[in-house]
Amino acid sequence: MIKTSTTLFAVIGDPIAHSLSPLMQNWMIHYFKIDAAYVAFHVKTHHLKQCVDGIKAFNMGGINVTVPHKEQILKHVDQKSRAVELLGAANTLKLKDGSIAAYVTDPFGFIESLGNNRSRFENAKVLMFGAGGAAKSVAYALSRLNINKLTITDIIDEKADLLAATAKQAFKIPHTETVHSTDINDCISDSAIIINASAVGMMPDTEKSVLNDYSAVTNRHFVFDLIYNPGQTALMKNARNRGTVVQNGLDMLIFQGLQSLRIWMNEEYELKGAALNELKGIMKQESGFHE
Amino acid sequence: MIKTSTTLFAVIGDPIAHSLSPLMQNWMIHYFKIDAAYVAFHVKTHHLKQCVDGIKAFNMGGINVTVPHKEQILKHVDQKSRAVELLGAANTLKLKDGSIAAYVTDPFGFIESLGNNRSRFENAKVLMFGAGGAAKSVAYALSRLNINKLTITDIIDEKADLLAATAKQAFKIPHTETVHSTDINDCISDSAIIINASAVGMMPDTEKSVLNDYSAVTNRHFVFDLIYNPGQTALMKNARNRGTVVQNGLDMLIFQGLQSLRIWMNEEYELKGAALNELKGIMKQESGFHE
Repeated sequence: MIKTSTTLFAVIGDPIAHSLSPLMQNWMIHYFKIDAAYVAFHVKTHHLKQCVDGIKAFNMGGINVTVPHKEQILKHVDQKSRAVELLGAANTLKLKDGSIAAYVTDPFGFIESLGNNRSRFENAKVLMFGAGGAAKSVAYALSRLNINKLTITDIIDEKADLLAATAKQAFKIPHTETVHSTDINDCISDSAIIINASAVGMMPDTEKSVLNDYSAVTNRHFVFDLIYNPGQTALMKNARNRGTVVQNGLDMLIFQGLQSLRIWMNEEYELKGAALNELKGIMKQESGFHE
Repeated sequence: MIKTSTTLFAVIGDPIAHSLSPLMQNWMIHYFKIDAAYVAFHVKTHHLKQCVDGIKAFNMGGINVTVPHKEQILKHVDQKSRAVELLGAANTLKLKDGSIAAYVTDPFGFIESLGNNRSRFENAKVLMFGAGGAAKSVAYALSRLNINKLTITDIIDEKADLLAATAKQAFKIPHTETVHSTDINDCISDSAIIINASAVGMMPDTEKSVLNDYSAVTNRHFVFDLIYNPGQTALMKNARNRGTVVQNGLDMLIFQGLQSLRIWMNEEYELKGAALNELKGIMKQESGFHE
């Protein structure tokens, strides 16, 4: 129940109609008994400065920032976390003593979502599909997981080259390289982990996959697909058929949101077990996720 | 339940901690099945421009404006209703095609709250205590009710004189005058209606009243006190003891809020009978009103 004391949080983006954040964050707000409410605002790029000024004027708790504003919003913030500086993007703003501080919680969401699979990353060789904003956040996360080598492939070679260079120079991953689709099977054989950080396989193109040939995928691999709708992509299905451990992006989505809530409230909320499963069930049901 | 499609409304003021609007408006939002939520923002005067820009940037449905911003906000709006022009104050802003339109719903709240007592005002002589912002809204409402004469009394003579002049020249009330406390009993005898639009008698000073001597108050009078906490002021109790019909300001508060909701949603919502009583009961209970 909203009261006069209730703090407002929001997500801004364009488009915003399909955002899962209000559903997810209001569930967490209720679960953690926080006196807050979370709404979605449809915001155009030319209004970003007014949004940041609005956070201050309205004395809001903070906001999440989503596509396409994660980079442009940085022109208007007062402070940036180290991760924001390195990634050049933010998804969380917080009002602190009249100033706007920017954070990025996607890398932490990726890491927290790994759970017991986290140990697989230590000193591992990782193959990642995609070189956009999500891939950049994952590359940063991989640097914190002490991987040994990151190989990037993207339909645009220059994007893959650029992210490989950034991952090595800025994120300090020891070895980075790019690979063409013709050499992908050799790379899979050489890697322990395959990550899809591209949009290939997302609804409605659920039959598509970054891989055509799964012959190099084995039960020693770990496949992480950032997509959460469908809950099981063609990549995940085919890999699982070969005995591979697979994971989708729903936990990452939840934990990046939880991390925002922790930042805003300065509290170490924990979400796991039955409660986490309940939230995932509600998100699947309310959003009409496909399996 | 807040969803991605949910429209946000808010009230801005300074202070704001004791506002009843979130409780009242969220009850009405639920009752009328509107996909909206209503929060309170603590806003300082130097941030009013950023607030109006924020309504546009966030694409909010609209806001209520309360003390001390009702006049200053007008510097930043694009359009004003006729009532706002006349009163020089607004309590409701609405985003319309990228512009901010200003409305004032207090006069309409006063009129709607009268119910069957409305007919008492036609061609009546009215005595009003107070000459501040609330009194000005009531004076405007009285002009719409076709009263014959308005007599104003205030502890600051100049304020009473100014409002009497405005009520005659701008609001077109046929006869207006001011009166000193020494002549109040003659004025009461000459009036059908007594209105308290001052703060005298409000919590915590519940023993105070604008009247010391009730000898001129009869069962032919109608006493309207804009105060709603306590629910029955010393003025109301003493008048009722003399057989007078009395009314407090709670219905006015509710109907000015309902009018804002109608403006924002472009819908002719109706609130009466058991539903109105339920809302009043919740407001009394949640806010710890005194009887």
